[in-house]
Amino acid sequence: MADVTFIGGGSFGTALSIMLAKKGYNANIWDRNEDVVRDINEKRENIKYIHNVVMPSNITAFSDLKDSIGNSKIVVLAVPSHVIRDICIRIKDIIDKEVIIVSIAKGIEEGSSKRLSEVIEEEIPNNPIVILSGPSHAEEVALDIPTTVVVSSKNMEAARKIQDLFITNKFRVYTNEDLIGVEIGGAVKNIIALAAGVSDGIGYGDNTKAALMTRGMSEIIRIGIKLGGRQETFSGLTGIGDLIVTCTSMHSRNRRAGILIGEGHSVEEACKEVGMVVEGIKACRAFYKLKEELGVSMPITDILYKVLFEDTDAKYGVYELMSRNKKDEIY
Amino acid sequence: MADVTFIGGGSFGTALSIMLAKKGYNANIWDRNEDVVRDINEKRENIKYIHNVVMPSNITAFSDLKDSIGNSKIVVLAVPSHVIRDICIRIKDIIDKEVIIVSIAKGIEEGSSKRLSEVIEEEIPNNPIVILSGPSHAEEVALDIPTTVVVSSKNMEAARKIQDLFITNKFRVYTNEDLIGVEIGGAVKNIIALAAGVSDGIGYGDNTKAALMTRGMSEIIRIGIKLGGRQETFSGLTGIGDLIVTCTSMHSRNRRAGILIGEGHSVEEACKEVGMVVEGIKACRAFYKLKEELGVSMPITDILYKVLFEDTDAKYGVYELMSRNKKDEIY
Repeated sequence: MADVTFIGGGSFGTALSIMLAKKGYNANIWDRNEDVVRDINEKRENIKYIHNVVMPSNITAFSDLKDSIGNSKIVVLAVPSHVIRDICIRIKDIIDKEVIIVSIAKGIEEGSSKRLSEVIEEEIPNNPIVILSGPSHAEEVALDIPTTVVVSSKNMEAARKIQDLFITNKFRVYTNEDLIGVEIGGAVKNIIALAAGVSDGIGYGDNTKAALMTRGMSEIIRIGIKLGGRQETFSGLTGIGDLIVTCTSMHSRNRRAGILIGEGHSVEEACKEVGMVVEGIKACRAFYKLKEELGVSMPITDILYKVLFEDTDAKYGVYELMSRNKKDEIY
Repeated sequence: MADVTFIGGGSFGTALSIMLAKKGYNANIWDRNEDVVRDINEKRENIKYIHNVVMPSNITAFSDLKDSIGNSKIVVLAVPSHVIRDICIRIKDIIDKEVIIVSIAKGIEEGSSKRLSEVIEEEIPNNPIVILSGPSHAEEVALDIPTTVVVSSKNMEAARKIQDLFITNKFRVYTNEDLIGVEIGGAVKNIIALAAGVSDGIGYGDNTKAALMTRGMSEIIRIGIKLGGRQETFSGLTGIGDLIVTCTSMHSRNRRAGILIGEGHSVEEACKEVGMVVEGIKACRAFYKLKEELGVSMPITDILYKVLFEDTDAKYGVYELMSRNKKDEIY
């Protein structure tokens, strides 16, 4: 019987399941892809998402959602942001009331502009919901490389349970009560990472990208505070920390997609090449709409939107950002 | 006759002189190294510091300080921080009162803990002093890669003159009145970059470094505000922007020195291998003393000091930083 069930056998969910298995917990993984399920159960490896890392025998993969959940008291939603609502609808009648739902996706729902914890709560209103976020590329977590993350919730008692569940001496888990700040930082940084990748793909340098990230940070803070997040959260692991790792690591699929677009590939080609969901593209569309409604200035999001969806030349777009006429450094 | 004289033919000074020469200004460079002077004048290249970039003919190099200054109305101090006072003593009787002194070094003076603009002002009290800082690796500036920097001064009229002098459509210069914040951000980020390099050298990952940089940012803000800088400056180009570029680019000699130390080389070996002044080492010693006097918590500076000067094992040092017992994310 599993202690924890992961819905989705993507890279981060898999990495976390390996960590828990090494701590002695039993973990179940549900995935819609039967190859992933078979690889985990038979080859003890998630070849599609985290190759070359052995998956301990106390991890079991399932193709059936109900079987995978069983009596687990903790269910981790390890699926892309656009699938969260559908998964919640599918599991809401399967899980007990005391089950803690953990979400590790980063984004907001397109159309409704709701944070993922709000989406989950709408569908599953009576269970504690915990968000786990921070600078944590799965490839490194799976290899036990020192990593820090943050958990947040309306129910901090549940958050502390999740902290105790995941914490190791290589995977430090902090609590932060600012749920809005944690979720918005994680969602917007993917937009900036995509733009940073575009700059890299064009062939611009580290100076250029640092300027872009600095302005991106202001953009995160402006929209984040408008939505009710706290300034100090954006200076923390789920804000600047996650922005840094996503904009500078080759593990970042948002950055990799951006590089391809900067090199002249279409958005479709870039997504196909990266082969996993590129959250920044959806986030760009969602925040482009939201910032208009709220009257918040997000120039990087604006220009990225034009590059992604309106055929603006990427090189021209980044150049526009760099060469505005402002003369005084005000944030 | 030169419009601008650069004291020091290092990488950033040389890159800026090339930029000005392309804008049509005449630039003089003084350097104590006769090979550098000869290479610039005869081979039109600064082989030691920026190779493979042609230096325009309106740049002239000098071995004599007085000759190099001539009637220049702008003198750029392009030397490491520990040489600033000596250079000021040597030029103070050569320069006219209306000459604007620009400093592009990053650090504070060891012993006195004074900012570089304070050191310059002590020696040359009657001239306007402008600090130029920001995420601007010389190697990229010399290649016309989009870059943004900030100028600051007690005399903002002089700062605006320097802004107009240097600005191009690829090199954006902003003004910021917070001289203290600009100088402290630039000095402390070298300490964090050295620590980030150590983490890379040990073989830790992007997750680890992002956590270190996030905490490093808090460290910059704490000491910076204590010394009179403004929070918003640390969120800007000379704060987080310069921290990012210095911690993530291979152009950063502080990071490169850190990597070597993390790999097990001695501090002396690392400095010799990097071949240029590693400002972070001096900054670490200076701020270790200053933070004690001011009672400011700087855990990364503490541990780096122990690694650099007290034989603490680098791996143990970074591990200590990662595994502290704090459970709530407070900055």
